[in-house]
Amino acid sequence: MTEYLNDSLPCGAIAGRAGDIAPFHVMELMAKAQSLEAAGRDIIHMEVGEPDFATPPAVIRAAQRFLDAGRVGYTPALGLPRLREAIAAHYRDRFGLSIDPERILVTAGASGALLLVLAALTESGDRWLLPDPGYPCNRNFVRAFGGIPESLYVSAEQSFQPDEASVRAAWGEKTRGIIVASPSNPTGTLIVPAELARIHALTRERHGALVVDEIYQGLTYGQAPWSALALGEDLFVINSFSKYFGMTGWRLGWAVVPPGYVRDIEKLAQHYFISASTPAQHAALAAFSPENIAELERRREEFRIRRDTLLKGLKAQDIDVPAHAEGAFYLYADVSRICTDSFAFAHRLLDEAGIAATPGIDFGSREPGRWLRLAYTTDVTRIEEALARIALLLER
Amino acid sequence: MTEYLNDSLPCGAIAGRAGDIAPFHVMELMAKAQSLEAAGRDIIHMEVGEPDFATPPAVIRAAQRFLDAGRVGYTPALGLPRLREAIAAHYRDRFGLSIDPERILVTAGASGALLLVLAALTESGDRWLLPDPGYPCNRNFVRAFGGIPESLYVSAEQSFQPDEASVRAAWGEKTRGIIVASPSNPTGTLIVPAELARIHALTRERHGALVVDEIYQGLTYGQAPWSALALGEDLFVINSFSKYFGMTGWRLGWAVVPPGYVRDIEKLAQHYFISASTPAQHAALAAFSPENIAELERRREEFRIRRDTLLKGLKAQDIDVPAHAEGAFYLYADVSRICTDSFAFAHRLLDEAGIAATPGIDFGSREPGRWLRLAYTTDVTRIEEALARIALLLER
Repeated sequence: MTEYLNDSLPCGAIAGRAGDIAPFHVMELMAKAQSLEAAGRDIIHMEVGEPDFATPPAVIRAAQRFLDAGRVGYTPALGLPRLREAIAAHYRDRFGLSIDPERILVTAGASGALLLVLAALTESGDRWLLPDPGYPCNRNFVRAFGGIPESLYVSAEQSFQPDEASVRAAWGEKTRGIIVASPSNPTGTLIVPAELARIHALTRERHGALVVDEIYQGLTYGQAPWSALALGEDLFVINSFSKYFGMTGWRLGWAVVPPGYVRDIEKLAQHYFISASTPAQHAALAAFSPENIAELERRREEFRIRRDTLLKGLKAQDIDVPAHAEGAFYLYADVSRICTDSFAFAHRLLDEAGIAATPGIDFGSREPGRWLRLAYTTDVTRIEEALARIALLLER
Repeated sequence: MTEYLNDSLPCGAIAGRAGDIAPFHVMELMAKAQSLEAAGRDIIHMEVGEPDFATPPAVIRAAQRFLDAGRVGYTPALGLPRLREAIAAHYRDRFGLSIDPERILVTAGASGALLLVLAALTESGDRWLLPDPGYPCNRNFVRAFGGIPESLYVSAEQSFQPDEASVRAAWGEKTRGIIVASPSNPTGTLIVPAELARIHALTRERHGALVVDEIYQGLTYGQAPWSALALGEDLFVINSFSKYFGMTGWRLGWAVVPPGYVRDIEKLAQHYFISASTPAQHAALAAFSPENIAELERRREEFRIRRDTLLKGLKAQDIDVPAHAEGAFYLYADVSRICTDSFAFAHRLLDEAGIAATPGIDFGSREPGRWLRLAYTTDVTRIEEALARIALLLER
């Protein structure tokens, strides 16, 4: 394949929103891990942001049954009415919340939901407050539509979650809104509902938008189930079938939006996506069945055991995980007592211990060299093996 | 569901790119058709832009086999390497073209491909030339990224396709590129390769981008298979598994882009989509098998017979289809001898003859009231029934 220099591109320049994106540093590590594996090395994968469990059997069966008939046409742009109703029933049964199915928009993954919500809310020059460290794609959804992402630094002492005072201090004339994630990627921390309620009141006062990313909802360990939707109708919630429901590759998620925004986002969905995957939607109809929830709860318990094992093992080796990681499947470890640069350390971890992990630089811009994200998307035996290898490495 | 006035939206205003989109007029007709059907009326659907055939059996079987294992994880952002290679092989076998698989990007439908290509090429204020009438979503992909869609009127005498002279006349200082569709939706017409070659030379001369929408490729009747990729590496081609391959609801498409643009579009794909649907990608691996192509060719022949039947029947009733519709599954009829407003006529056609069709106003802005799009996505018997009903209506 011919490679062109950027200034000699045959069809004109690449737009800033694309050209300016830094590649994920973890890609370099994953490529190295792959070549080590090809050479016969045993690599423990703790860099991966997807569950290692297969799609649950009940969901697979629902998809197979649907495909038997072979009629895989488009669905309405906002999703199968039955699926929107099933999601509303899930909010009722699990969270005691009454959500109008009309407000539930089925999307091509949480990615599709974020894209639609940001497209609907962002005018050129609008600023969005994004907790840092946070999900790296958010800044690019903002930039996609001419918005300006603004880092809101959140410290380990704050559980890597914003508080009302810092949001208020950061909120400026051009601020359009804030995106909060709970549980958070990369830190696994939750926001305290009362604090989120205060942030919500602030966004209400400023006539701005609160977007709450709940894509790891369900994957919490010890906390009562809670959704930001309990705060009122005037906020945007993003969710997904990928993580708790174990359906990453199906690319299916949803958004819950305030009533006055549904029709315009529907038009965007018609034009940008036509509709979300039809087999995925029919498969997801089985996601809320008691049989499937029982399976997902067994998996949640397994994740809890892994978290406890990893957390205890790291602490035993004096590797600090300062914030209480109560959800998702990540620990955000402070490796500053071991190294000065977590990206270099991630390379060392891979080369010398055969462990892949994701450096902080992929998630944040303040002291990223202190941090390493470890995903417990591998089983307890492998986690114990990883801990043993880390112990050996640190003894050297 | 509470409805808010636009000026009292609780989370701030809706962005222009969403609020300014006119709803599709056909939606109103489809809602009416649905309530007529609920009341027992027999409606002939000629408004639908998707094949009435089920997903072909070979593709369904491939999906089922893949799902048996239950492991439905993310794929690489640009798609399964095997699928990218299969698409390259398809270009070789069917079109005699050698396309580097690295240039082939698997996307969430052609919609995802258009979104990524426009995101990569459009800076705020860039102008894109869009043939009018044309696919209505294109202007919203352009507007998504701050671009300005500019109508390039194409007349029936031009087969509703642009020529080099008119593109040259319309090309201005801020023009970023042009999107051409062949076969075209809503008109079913093809562009003459030599004319497209001249337009390509012009975009090359202006250091601009030529985007060719080939999503109806394969659905042509009497023309030799051809792809704009024969013109060189320096253009963008959009394609889809939806139409010829009969996979609409799976949401899978692809783009072929010039070598220098792959890496940046890959970054956008990672951030905006993560990856396209995994079951769809595994299903599509079976799309190019000889068994499946044989089935698709049988369907193509069926579409040809439908087109001939509909075209002949309309002409017999003095309803003009002025441009030669050699592809897709649409005829664009000039109904100006019957009515002054094709939208009102579409309502009459539905009310009095039980036929649903799409008015020109959904596709173009110059004299849209002359035009009606009739999709032959229903079988010959139903098409003959529709023709009989139209004859009755016109006798009144």
